[in-house]
Amino acid sequence: MEFHNNFVCPLLTDLYEVSMVYAYWKSGRQNNISAFDLFFRKNPFRGEFTIFAGLSQILKFMETFKVTVEHINFLKQILPNADPEFFIWFKEELKLKDVIVYAPIEGTVVFPREPLLRVEGPLAACQLLETVLLNLGYCCALRVNFPSLVCTNAARYRLLCGPNKQLLEFGLRRAQGPDGAMSASVYSFMGGFDGTSNVLASLTSGIPIYGTHAHAFITSFSGLSDLEQHADEPLGNSSVPFREVCMRNRQALSCEYTNDGELAAFISYALCFPQTFLCLVDTYSTEESGIPNFLVVSLSLVQCGLRPVGVRLDSGDLAYLSKFARTKFKELDEKVGIILDDFKFENLKIVASNDLNETTLSSLELQGHAIDCFGIGTNLVTCQSQPALGCVYKMVEIEGSPRIKLSQEIEKVTIPGRKKCYRLFGKERVPLLDLMVHVSEDEPKAGHRVLCRHPFIENKRAFVSPALVTPLHVCVWKDGQVTSESGRERTLYEIRQYVQEQLKYFREDILRPVNPTPYKVSLSDDLFTSLHSLWMAASPIADLC
Amino acid sequence: MEFHNNFVCPLLTDLYEVSMVYAYWKSGRQNNISAFDLFFRKNPFRGEFTIFAGLSQILKFMETFKVTVEHINFLKQILPNADPEFFIWFKEELKLKDVIVYAPIEGTVVFPREPLLRVEGPLAACQLLETVLLNLGYCCALRVNFPSLVCTNAARYRLLCGPNKQLLEFGLRRAQGPDGAMSASVYSFMGGFDGTSNVLASLTSGIPIYGTHAHAFITSFSGLSDLEQHADEPLGNSSVPFREVCMRNRQALSCEYTNDGELAAFISYALCFPQTFLCLVDTYSTEESGIPNFLVVSLSLVQCGLRPVGVRLDSGDLAYLSKFARTKFKELDEKVGIILDDFKFENLKIVASNDLNETTLSSLELQGHAIDCFGIGTNLVTCQSQPALGCVYKMVEIEGSPRIKLSQEIEKVTIPGRKKCYRLFGKERVPLLDLMVHVSEDEPKAGHRVLCRHPFIENKRAFVSPALVTPLHVCVWKDGQVTSESGRERTLYEIRQYVQEQLKYFREDILRPVNPTPYKVSLSDDLFTSLHSLWMAASPIADLC
Repeated sequence: MEFHNNFVCPLLTDLYEVSMVYAYWKSGRQNNISAFDLFFRKNPFRGEFTIFAGLSQILKFMETFKVTVEHINFLKQILPNADPEFFIWFKEELKLKDVIVYAPIEGTVVFPREPLLRVEGPLAACQLLETVLLNLGYCCALRVNFPSLVCTNAARYRLLCGPNKQLLEFGLRRAQGPDGAMSASVYSFMGGFDGTSNVLASLTSGIPIYGTHAHAFITSFSGLSDLEQHADEPLGNSSVPFREVCMRNRQALSCEYTNDGELAAFISYALCFPQTFLCLVDTYSTEESGIPNFLVVSLSLVQCGLRPVGVRLDSGDLAYLSKFARTKFKELDEKVGIILDDFKFENLKIVASNDLNETTLSSLELQGHAIDCFGIGTNLVTCQSQPALGCVYKMVEIEGSPRIKLSQEIEKVTIPGRKKCYRLFGKERVPLLDLMVHVSEDEPKAGHRVLCRHPFIENKRAFVSPALVTPLHVCVWKDGQVTSESGRERTLYEIRQYVQEQLKYFREDILRPVNPTPYKVSLSDDLFTSLHSLWMAASPIADLC
Repeated sequence: MEFHNNFVCPLLTDLYEVSMVYAYWKSGRQNNISAFDLFFRKNPFRGEFTIFAGLSQILKFMETFKVTVEHINFLKQILPNADPEFFIWFKEELKLKDVIVYAPIEGTVVFPREPLLRVEGPLAACQLLETVLLNLGYCCALRVNFPSLVCTNAARYRLLCGPNKQLLEFGLRRAQGPDGAMSASVYSFMGGFDGTSNVLASLTSGIPIYGTHAHAFITSFSGLSDLEQHADEPLGNSSVPFREVCMRNRQALSCEYTNDGELAAFISYALCFPQTFLCLVDTYSTEESGIPNFLVVSLSLVQCGLRPVGVRLDSGDLAYLSKFARTKFKELDEKVGIILDDFKFENLKIVASNDLNETTLSSLELQGHAIDCFGIGTNLVTCQSQPALGCVYKMVEIEGSPRIKLSQEIEKVTIPGRKKCYRLFGKERVPLLDLMVHVSEDEPKAGHRVLCRHPFIENKRAFVSPALVTPLHVCVWKDGQVTSESGRERTLYEIRQYVQEQLKYFREDILRPVNPTPYKVSLSDDLFTSLHSLWMAASPIADLC
């Protein structure tokens, strides 16, 4: 299924980008060779790592970048005093063929201040890309901000739950529109989730989908008289009408006082989905009605040779209710014994949802629970605890001369110059730190000692002799096309795997959810010196009086 | 410009909607007449009101609802055991022609538990609409969640700043993809903002756009030698080269020590935009370089007969720096006197941005400042303090019989039955409370006393004799098409006006940003009685032992 969204075009940009492009063109500087870094200043979610995601969408946008006559006509309206030649140039000459982009491959663990993208080329083209690179969406959402944020969020949930719990993304109804929703499904899968409820994301990206029914399905039945004819047919290897099997079991399990409408709904659902029977059990009362009704129908399925799947809890005390459910499952095993090979009620799946976030999940882990699968919606896709990653795009070099952007806040000062970035590993592949060097410098080498400096604090320095060095960036766009090193041909499943593999090697104290240790991003000695001399030169001296 | 986004289709839905539709169809209940309410439980941003927005997008989606062959083929994959007849029915029979939708018109002030949409019709069609109505986007983002949230957020900023400050939406780079961004621009304008930086939103919706340049434009100049030839041409009514005018003023104003690159950038920008000269002044130092350089070029423009516009502050202490800037503007007036009729430097515009939110804005108002215009990005479009409105969609009636959904949390219990909703006003159009009555009841009348009851607390009751009664809902969709009462033909500007007009009449303590008084949403006595008898009947009695 091909995606079409004509909102994604060169004009989905802030007016000031267009104004600047005009000013560059007007002063004849549109083709000055410039370099911009796209980076973020702080890891999200009070954590100390971020997963880089969204690259493939950026590359798709660049491939289809096209200025139309309609765009030009509108630009003429909003820049009524501009030189008419400008519009001709904008339509015909403003292309991405001379732009070069370096980036980590999709799914790489990254840290603050490292360039996520280094964009080089003619000043006007690089400038116009700013808003697009920061936030626009081609397919799902192409800007790095949201994909990286959701992917990182998902990876944090995965770390918190460990590898054995199932994690499902249920956020479709809470995302910002369809491409926010599609993005959320894709990038939470990339970050370590196991599936989604979003049917279209499964169709377009092959992500496993999960889902059963809502409360409305249960409340649509008011009693057993709502059961239609097909409840009177037998199911599986049984010859008794399914309704009758259920009614006998209701009596056998002493469940006469549960809600009749709910029981009817479960029977009807079992008839439709005998192989994937999983029920929402909290419509009336999980303990008094939902679980007993579910067990009546499950036992009936098992007696017909079919294997029910489990329950979903969507409200109440999830720790208590999940343990309650597990106990009831075990009691049923004890009561009825093994009916089908390889099937025990004890092993039925318990899915929990209801506004889950990191805090409630941690608290569930502490209390103890019997949940097998978490469905996470709002807090995953809106990234409630930090809804924006805050990427910025800053000029770092023009016509070979490095540029700095000052700020009263030290963290907002940019690192000037075109930079290469390396990850330095110790023994057993443990990442020690990342090192930025100017493109003109040699790369650090395994077994060779290198001086690594804190970008702003003069006396924070370390000699590092790495056991292994890997470059963080590859060239992903050149000569008007996506390069073969871009890693774009990897499948979503491969990228997901890559994310988990990297996380395995980082020190636990860097990955932990609360008060983690910051990972070091250092500068070479030359880069440090260059930054500080530019900084001094560009800072005006205040004149207090 | 027409919008195309083929993500917006019947399959952009949660799997469980499809499962339920199958189960309804399988049991022959797909055409049972049902009613669903879409509502939210809590006002966002710790406030006590919400603006209903997003209706026109929902109606557009309903007009274009279409199941394709590709959709059906995918459904066959994910429901491999389903009856083949189902897919034929899904493709051919599942239509929206028998669905009826009631809603407030776009921009109406609404409150928790009131139906934002009442959807009536065949069970399967109404069920399938759930996920779409809650969250999907047609054009910008059609679900009620995000448009209402952004619109309400914008209205809060407007209330906080009063009618005379200019408010601009700068959130394009922080939104969830293009339709999140386009939605943010449209719905923040609807809520009371004055414009956006988003060029495409201006093209498609006619919202005023604003924007100048970024830090990169300034840092692209390293000194005055970067100025190209056209700086040697005169500007406006002057015959002196503009560069020369500026250099003279630099000396006259004793600004020799400001950053040369920044001055060159301002001169270059003035040459391109002599009528709309507004500069970002914080690249190096607002006090020592930005403001002085800006005044050098502004004075030069004025001497050439042109009127500069102002400055933008994007970092630092905005209260202090804005007052500093205003003082410098006044000093220049005193120094140079009136040069152009109707122009005083004192009246130059001061725009402030940089992660503004309600808290920083309130604090600025308390401290005193000289800002004329606020540019708000991240906090407006991501709705940082509450990124989801949390709308839900619950069945309230089926085949004429009311349905309830219980919960251990009282606020999650639904109000059963099809309901009409009225706003009851006191003297001078002050809204007193909203009243829900069953569709079969008479409507409350002006001048007639009516008993209004709290939905859950038995002894909270009030007699109200309204001076005016208005219905909250109109029928917006019937016979497969948008109705003429839907209010869809109103322009964005008219809806924006409607929002502000309503807010004028509500009591201030309901609208205030911190600790507001809740507005009452009551039930008629009959509805109260019906709710509570259903509630008792559906609640199983626990058996403690």
